[in-house]
Amino acid sequence: MQIEFWFDFASSYSYPAAMRLQALSEHHHIDVRWRPFLLGAIFNHQGMHDSPFNINAVKGEYMWKDLARVCQDLCLPFAKPDVFPRNGLLPARVACCYANEPWLPAFVRAVFAANFEHNEDISSPHIIEQCLSRCGVNKPDILTAASSAESKHRLRQQTDEALQRGVFGAPSFFVGEELFWGNDRLERAIQWALEPK
Amino acid sequence: MQIEFWFDFASSYSYPAAMRLQALSEHHHIDVRWRPFLLGAIFNHQGMHDSPFNINAVKGEYMWKDLARVCQDLCLPFAKPDVFPRNGLLPARVACCYANEPWLPAFVRAVFAANFEHNEDISSPHIIEQCLSRCGVNKPDILTAASSAESKHRLRQQTDEALQRGVFGAPSFFVGEELFWGNDRLERAIQWALEPK
Repeated sequence: MQIEFWFDFASSYSYPAAMRLQALSEHHHIDVRWRPFLLGAIFNHQGMHDSPFNINAVKGEYMWKDLARVCQDLCLPFAKPDVFPRNGLLPARVACCYANEPWLPAFVRAVFAANFEHNEDISSPHIIEQCLSRCGVNKPDILTAASSAESKHRLRQQTDEALQRGVFGAPSFFVGEELFWGNDRLERAIQWALEPK
Repeated sequence: MQIEFWFDFASSYSYPAAMRLQALSEHHHIDVRWRPFLLGAIFNHQGMHDSPFNINAVKGEYMWKDLARVCQDLCLPFAKPDVFPRNGLLPARVACCYANEPWLPAFVRAVFAANFEHNEDISSPHIIEQCLSRCGVNKPDILTAASSAESKHRLRQQTDEALQRGVFGAPSFFVGEELFWGNDRLERAIQWALEPK
């Protein structure tokens, strides 16, 4: 059994989903396929040129209160980032390029923690190097490889795939072709994976 | 302790919230204040002139699948309405006008069932009379009273209040001035009402 996790490092509700996904899925013996994509490109396609939480300030204000409460209920540290949405292109390229590495889940969590716990600039190569070293990865060529034309192309392709498969927000989960949207649906997606079909 | 339930009879996720609210709140000894409002007016204020689930067809398609699954998980009957969003102005005026009647919760459920279980036209006076009689109310003057200038004004005022207090979607719950949005947050709102402050 497999669950695909489609996420963007800038996406606020992707944070609690990313932090709990691996433990939950290991508990249920479900494999995770980590699939970063560019949510901004999906929003552009929908005619929006900013996060809907910025376009609708009243909804945005609620989201930050709700997210703080969600994190508190999960005992997850949380601090509202000074910049939202942060540019997550560089770590998304790394995650896309190295999606099958054993250190990838820890790296994803480190980047989300940088953005939503430590209020760090995840567009900075220095911060992303720190995220890599926080999970024991000390290969100097990773950021260079992630910035290659091929890596850029691969992330664009993955974003196109998200659009084609009906992803309209993040986090999203696929079990087969069944889509589940939002941190609130992670448990339901896992249940779906476990149900006999 | 009290929970305010802000709902629109056309709103898809208001349906499961409305169907489970009274039993849940009675179980926890929490009073419910039933507060219909016009979600369309809130959307207009946000610059949208249709349901966001119609404006964004991909999101809308997902919503109907998700809602069907939510209802199935709750053992609630559900059939996708032929028309969405249906015009819920008449029953909203009734609910606003008779908010404190003992039959009001049953009426609210009857109207939601008409829309989302029986695929009936809730803008029709005939259907709304049926909804009233389904919960044992046989007063012929209710629809006349609900269509008076005063009733119309009261619903408009309630919608203005929703806007002023930061309601941006439905269903919404208030516990004091703490806002909770969405059927998914009903349990959290009730927990909030029960927590010592």
